[in-house]
This record gives sequence, C-alpha cells and structure tokens, in this order.
Amino acid sequence: MGAIVCSDLLALGGDLGGTSTRILVVDGNGRVHGQSTAGGGNPISRPADAAAAFGEALSTALAGVDAGRVSASAIGVAGGSALRRPRAAAQFERVWSAAGLTCDPGYRPDLEVAFAAGTPEPDGAVLVAGTGAAAGAVTDHQLTRTADGHGWLLGDDGSGYWLGREAVRAALRTLDAGEVPGRLVSSVLRELDSDAPVGDCVDTSSPSRPGFDRQREGVIQAVYSRPGIHLSALAPLVSAAYREGDPEATSIVERAATSLLATLRLIRAEDEGTPVVLAGSLAGDASPVGVVLRRLLQGRFAGPVLSARTGAGGAAWLALAALDPDLASPEVHARLCA
Amino acid sequence: MGAIVCSDLLALGGDLGGTSTRILVVDGNGRVHGQSTAGGGNPISRPADAAAAFGEALSTALAGVDAGRVSASAIGVAGGSALRRPRAAAQFERVWSAAGLTCDPGYRPDLEVAFAAGTPEPDGAVLVAGTGAAAGAVTDHQLTRTADGHGWLLGDDGSGYWLGREAVRAALRTLDAGEVPGRLVSSVLRELDSDAPVGDCVDTSSPSRPGFDRQREGVIQAVYSRPGIHLSALAPLVSAAYREGDPEATSIVERAATSLLATLRLIRAEDEGTPVVLAGSLAGDASPVGVVLRRLLQGRFAGPVLSARTGAGGAAWLALAALDPDLASPEVHARLCA
Repeated sequence: MGAIVCSDLLALGGDLGGTSTRILVVDGNGRVHGQSTAGGGNPISRPADAAAAFGEALSTALAGVDAGRVSASAIGVAGGSALRRPRAAAQFERVWSAAGLTCDPGYRPDLEVAFAAGTPEPDGAVLVAGTGAAAGAVTDHQLTRTADGHGWLLGDDGSGYWLGREAVRAALRTLDAGEVPGRLVSSVLRELDSDAPVGDCVDTSSPSRPGFDRQREGVIQAVYSRPGIHLSALAPLVSAAYREGDPEATSIVERAATSLLATLRLIRAEDEGTPVVLAGSLAGDASPVGVVLRRLLQGRFAGPVLSARTGAGGAAWLALAALDPDLASPEVHARLCA
Repeated sequence: MGAIVCSDLLALGGDLGGTSTRILVVDGNGRVHGQSTAGGGNPISRPADAAAAFGEALSTALAGVDAGRVSASAIGVAGGSALRRPRAAAQFERVWSAAGLTCDPGYRPDLEVAFAAGTPEPDGAVLVAGTGAAAGAVTDHQLTRTADGHGWLLGDDGSGYWLGREAVRAALRTLDAGEVPGRLVSSVLRELDSDAPVGDCVDTSSPSRPGFDRQREGVIQAVYSRPGIHLSALAPLVSAAYREGDPEATSIVERAATSLLATLRLIRAEDEGTPVVLAGSLAGDASPVGVVLRRLLQGRFAGPVLSARTGAGGAAWLALAALDPDLASPEVHARLCA
C-alpha cells in the first residue's frame, strides 16, 4: 500500500559544495526523475553566488517534474551555520520557493550526507577530504561529533588547501637552501611566478645572487595577494609530482594521509565495527592521498572502509527515509549511490 | 685626527620593528646623545602609522641635538621592500626631512642590524625570532642569504605567530577529542572565547553535547575575524603554560625551537667558526623558546652563539662604521650593544 502512495511522491537530494552544487530528484523506487550540477553552492564565502547556483541547479533538476510532488528533501551543506545568517537564509529561501518547492529543504551537515552516500548503515564514521578536511561520528544517520574542519588558517590538515600550502613551503625552502628545484618545486614556481625563469636561474655555486630573492619574493607576493584558501588550486601539482616520484611530493602526500588518519582517530575508536566512509576528491582512490590513506587504514579499524561517490545520492536516500523509512532500503541505496 | 673631526659628527641608528621603533644618536666615541622608543615603525602593514611613529621617535631622540650634525645613519627595517613603494617611501622621506636630517637614512635589512647588535665581527649568521622568524648569513656586515621570513601564512616557523597558531590548534584538537583542557588550552579558551565557561562545560561523559561545538565555533570565529598575524598575541600564553609544565606547551616550545634551528641550518654550515647571533624576543634567554634553542645549539656550531639585545645599538655602530671604519671598534660596540 505505502509503496503505491509514495510512487507518486518525489524526494530531492542536494549537495552544496564549495566547487559544485548537485541536485537529484528521485521517486520512491529510487528512479531518477531529474538531476543537475551547477557551480559552487556553499553559502559560507559568497551567499548570493551560492544561492544563484543553487537556483540554477534546482530549476534544471526540476525541469521535467511537477515540483509540487517533491514531498521530502535533504541537502548537505558544509558550514551550515552560514544559513543561519538572516541574509543568506533569505536568499536561499527565495530560490527554494521560486523553484515551486513547498516542503522543508532539510539542510543538514555535509558530513551526514557524505556518510549516507557511502553506506545505508545508521552508525559509523565519515572522513571528508577535498578543499577542506573534516571527520564526523554518525549515530542513527545524524552527526554526533566532528573533528577538524577548522578552516585553512587553523586546520583542514591534509586537505587540498593544506597540500597547496605545503607545496609552496617546499618551494620556498628549496629557494632558501639554494637547492636545485625538483619536479614539484619547479611546477609550483612555474604556476606562481610565471615571469621568472625556472631552473635556468638556479645556480648552486652562487646561491646568494639576486635572482634567488626576486623569485622568492614573487612566490610570496603571489600567495599573499590572494585569499589563503586559493592555495588549494596547487593541490593537483602535488598529485602529479607524486606520480612522477618526486620526493617532496611523496613526503607531502604521506603527511596529508597521516594527518587525515589522525583527524579520524579523534572521533573514532579502532575497535568499533561500524563502517568508516571516505568522501571527497582527495580521499577517493584516484588521488594519491586517498591511496596512501587506504593503505594506512588497512586492518586498522574493525569495521569496513567504504567510499562515498555522489553526495547528492546519499542526500536523496536520506530524503526518501524522511518520506517513509521503508523506502530507504539497501537496494535503493545501491541504486542511488553507485 | 679623524677622531677629533668625528667627535663633532653624530651617527644615528634605528630599528623599525613591528611592535616598536627605536632610535639612538651617538657620537664618534659611542656616547649616547639621544634615544627614544615609539610604537611600531614597520612600513609593511600600515605605512602611515609607521611613518608617524618613526617621526615621533626621531623628534624625541633629536630633541637636544643639532640634527645637522648627524652625518651617517643606519636603520634596520623588516620587509624593507615596503619602502620601495612610492607612497610609503614619500611618507618616510617627509618625516626624515621634517626632523632636519640631511644624510641618507641608510635603510638596511633588520637581519643585518640584528647581527651587528650581537657582534662587531663582519661575518656570521643571525637568527631573529619575534612576531616573525628568519635567519640570515652575513658577509662583511651585509646580508648575503636569508631563510624563512616568509610571513604568517607560509612560514615564520617558530615565531610568535606560529606559537599562537599552535596554541589555538591544540585547543581545537582538545575540544574535538572531548578531552579535559590543560593549562595552555584553558588559557587559550579564556582568551578567545570569554563568554563560554571553561572547564565547567567540559563533560567527558557526553562529548557530543552542544556546548562543545558552541565553544569550538567561538574559538574559530574569534581567530578568523581578525588578521592572521594577530595570533602572535597568544604566544605569551604558551610561555606561561610551559613554565607550569603543561605538556601541550612543552611540545609547542620544543617544536618552535627545532623549527628555528632548521631555519638557521638552511643558511649556515655547522663547521663554520664565525658567530651565530640570536635576536628577537623569542630567541632571548628570557623566553622558553630561546632557552630550548640554546640547548639545541650547544656544541652544534663551531662558532660562538651570541645574543643581540638592542637593534638600535647595532644600527648606530653600523652608522659609525659608515662615518669612519676606525670608529666602529669592538670597544664602542660593547658600549652601544651591552
């Protein structure tokens, strides 16, 4: 009976990330009725832009759907406290109503959505490593504790920002020491100081020649002239140099993975049997950090280590659970979060 | 003969630091004719305020002196590149002329002045640790290479800023882990989050209660709402907790000293016999970091490890050397830099 009623109803899942906004509209059987991706929808930094991206994603995902049928929603937001600010809240509310949606958006911590994207289990731990980095303990699908996620100045150890900063630090240390830049440092110098010649200007026999200081000053000015978080744009250079066997990059990747493990261990006992979900671009097995992290995790926790792919799928599954707990089956989870 | 001529002439030494500006006016025998201290005179952050402090210091130091007799000057500036910006340069020039001074101000890197404040020797290395941290190699009284001094976002490892940031990181890690704050963390929480109760709100039996997150968010907001460099204001909390035996503070102080040693080693071979000069509030033996650093340095470098006290004294000595190399004797150095 319930299933017949609910097949008319739809659930909406969303993931408002720093670099992209994803929306998924599904029916009670987990069939997708609409989906979309737009620009960054995280309300922390630029609420107006984020609300616009959110609106664009909603209108695309709901294009072939009667928005009135959407009866439940779950949307993951990093730094959800930003939505408690009146102005951001009003902007997001306006966009929601404009899309013809009437149910509650169901904003919840991105860590909850990331955990749900990795497993249908109610309890466990989740580690997200992307531009930022944070871990969370989840009980009954709800976040009960978190570790790190303290932002670029104080934490996010092992995140994309952190990788980028360590890459610049390695470059500056190389210039300070008057050493010949390796692959990572060369690519950082090329990226940050395009005017200065790389390699050619390095002459270990006279490390005090002015060229050294000019290049170093160029690097420093390039970094300080932009918001700190922009350092995350350099993270791919670390991954690339790691794959080429660069020792600096290897050290940075290993320290990133070790830091992420330390963050996870702050909120997770090793003998717990519930799942550990890894999410975010850096924790994925396409990233060297994710690969090293998995190696460090092997046999360390009693529970299984799982990967979360699409946050919006996990959110849609949570929205279905809100609609009717029976709908949120492991089968539907597998379909939405494959 | 030279001495007779020069006894009429005066030399001016200055030190434009982030927290204070010091000026010393001396004659050819190293006798002090005027001295002063004013607010921060470093042109990097707020050139107009710095120029005003510089002007105040000049007018006080020259109060009982004919400024026209000042024939040579040496002034140490951190981040002297700021004085190459036209606006800052004009502000400083205006203040200099207004004081009735006609000789060249002789701006030079603060590391050169710090080295000269520690020794009359022409060659050696210097390590400055205060709000920031940097090391330099000196040849013939001139800086030939530097290490670190890369600023709060990328470096200044072991500096006051760095200590403050590590103190906040320790506090956040304690809150994340749901542990009972020790002395250092309690004092950081008290400093940054005066509204939240400290100690009382810590209940290890339910580390997930909302109080934890509220306090943590308060700490994070307090830090991010101010420029990053303000974290250096927390450095004294680390020293105080270290003296009380706090393990977190002990770890931070030891890591600071280790970082400073690593910075020094980037520009200094261990088998060189020239002096190593330590300067700045953190490198002094009144600071735990300075004490641990001295322990680490013991027997490590072939040359003597010396302490620089007043930067302005070293600058005045360099100014005398510019006036007449014979005036810059070890005896006069001892008088000016005691």
